[in-house]
Amino acid sequence: MAQLVLEGLEDHGTRVISESVPTKIERDGEQLKVEWTSKEGGTSQETFDTVLMAVGRVPETSQLGLRDVGVELDKGGFVVGGHSDDHERTSVPNVYAVGDVLKDRPELTPVAIRAGRLLARRLFGGATEQMDYDKVPTTVFTPVEYSCVGLSEEVALQKHGEDNIEVYHGFYTPLEYTVPERSAKQCYVKLITEREEPQTVYGIHYMGPNAGEVMQGFAVALRCGVTRDKLLTTVGIHPTSAETVMALHITKRSGLDPTITGC
Amino acid sequence: MAQLVLEGLEDHGTRVISESVPTKIERDGEQLKVEWTSKEGGTSQETFDTVLMAVGRVPETSQLGLRDVGVELDKGGFVVGGHSDDHERTSVPNVYAVGDVLKDRPELTPVAIRAGRLLARRLFGGATEQMDYDKVPTTVFTPVEYSCVGLSEEVALQKHGEDNIEVYHGFYTPLEYTVPERSAKQCYVKLITEREEPQTVYGIHYMGPNAGEVMQGFAVALRCGVTRDKLLTTVGIHPTSAETVMALHITKRSGLDPTITGC
Ligand SMILES: Cc1cc2nc3c(=O)[nH]c(=O)nc-3n(C[C@H](O)[C@H](O)[C@H](O)COP(=O)(O)OP(=O)(O)OC[C@H]3O[C@@H](n4cnc5c(N)ncnc54)[C@H](O)[C@@H]3O)c2cc1C
Ligand SMILES: Cc1cc2nc3c(=O)[nH]c(=O)nc-3n(C[C@H](O)[C@H](O)[C@H](O)COP(=O)(O)OP(=O)(O)OC[C@H]3O[C@@H](n4cnc5c(N)ncnc54)[C@H](O)[C@@H]3O)c2cc1C
Repeated sequence: MAQLVLEGLEDHGTRVISESVPTKIERDGEQLKVEWTSKEGGTSQETFDTVLMAVGRVPETSQLGLRDVGVELDKGGFVVGGHSDDHERTSVPNVYAVGDVLKDRPELTPVAIRAGRLLARRLFGGATEQMDYDKVPTTVFTPVEYSCVGLSEEVALQKHGEDNIEVYHGFYTPLEYTVPERSAKQCYVKLITEREEPQTVYGIHYMGPNAGEVMQGFAVALRCGVTRDKLLTTVGIHPTSAETVMALHITKRSGLDPTITGC
Repeated sequence: MAQLVLEGLEDHGTRVISESVPTKIERDGEQLKVEWTSKEGGTSQETFDTVLMAVGRVPETSQLGLRDVGVELDKGGFVVGGHSDDHERTSVPNVYAVGDVLKDRPELTPVAIRAGRLLARRLFGGATEQMDYDKVPTTVFTPVEYSCVGLSEEVALQKHGEDNIEVYHGFYTPLEYTVPERSAKQCYVKLITEREEPQTVYGIHYMGPNAGEVMQGFAVALRCGVTRDKLLTTVGIHPTSAETVMALHITKRSGLDPTITGC
């Protein structure tokens, strides 16, 4: 899926220099001269109009004195949660962590909001419900969007073993791409299920226009324990791209061409 | 929902003349002169470049001699199915009907395909599965799309009684409308549930961009017996329009303003 996102960016005109680290940025008249080092150690430089840094995030915990009161942090500064059966409880029983700061949890706005609400209800409202971090859907808002819910193929294989996982997949063409003959090379869906009946769905991965809009309802279905049979027996909405998910029948194991053709 | 579709068309520049029937179309040079009669009986006329007739469909059964062999048709020429516990069996036991021709069934391509496949499997493959015509999702591909699955509010109220139905609703603004300040007047979601716990979802109605793409996954969730709690506990994908469905909390009964604000 990551490869398809990358190819989508390249097809949209982005030149991708991978496995390289910028080492210097200098003013060069109106422009900026950037120097970078490749994996092999070679150095390159080039001049650009604008430099946008999207270098990831680190938790801003160093100034909080958390270690002083005994709250366990990992090397990256993330708070280790999950103590005493409470997902958000830290190693100090009356200290909780919610949101991006929590180790190994998805860094997403609705996750932070929901985990905070549930924690407040448990602490002050007598509730017991824990945040369910599994099956959190997410979207990468690249020109060709990627959205998914549930397990990745890699994690599913690792967790359940190759013999117990079936992967259905297909390349499809969105109807709105056919008239302008737009390339649909990256429009791809992958369904990861239990191999045996009832073929519980473990994950859905979707590349294509409006992937986030498509995935939201499927995320609800996954929360409802959807099986492949439930997918197959849901009538598709024609013509949409989302109906592709309902129609996947080529397994990766079969080695057959997963191109979905026809109207 | 129908009113919103209509308003959407009008906001896109379509002049709608409702409750009127065209009575005559005549050549007028390069153009076409159309005459129509309003509900009140008044006659109007106007000249147009093009006339497109979208007058609905009738089943082409009259030439098939179905009545001669005893197959029951209704007044409109639709085949009456549902005999002997088989949805597609007609009043003559060895005659079946599938697709648009079948009385009171949704006239949709995937419905015809699926009903035909299941019938073939029952007749020749020893299968027993019947087509499930409930919870068939559908989309009206108007400029502002409308898509739904399950019961309409009217049918839900009629079937279960007003005291047993809760309707949650909200007007939302798609993110892509905010920068160009596009009117989101017709972007509206309605959720129809059982009033008592577990608040089984009976219907979802969605007006907005890509409504068909949004609805497909929710149709799967409905097939899985989704309850309001499962909706509320599914994490939204932010920012999408579909996450609105997860967040609906204003009931129609409350009379409160159903405008969803903020990011
Ligand atoms: C560029 C970017 C794009 C993103 N896009 C999306 C998206 O499309 N969808 C999505 O779901 N998520 C997105 N995210 C992630 C989302 O923003 C975070 O998951 C979310 O904000 C996490 O909420 P939080 O409350 O845990 O942390 P934050 O929102 O970071 O809040 C932490 C707050 O604590 C304050 N603070 C820090 N130290 C102190 C201190 N010592 N004293 C007082 N206050 C302090 C900070 O100023 C900050 O306001 C994006 C993030 C980035 C950076
Ligand atoms: C303008 C329009 C737009 C539509 N848009 C959509 C849409 O977006 N999505 C969707 O899901 N559905 C859509 N539909 C509905 C969809 O086309 C029908 O539901 C579907 O085609 C029904 O399939 P069917 O096999 O029952 O009938 P049909 O597809 O109508 O097939 C019946 C066939 O029988 C043939 N026939 C009739 N009489 C005889 C005879 N005596 N001998 C031999 N052959 C005969 C006809 O020529 C025809 O080919 C649309 C329909 C129309 C008219």
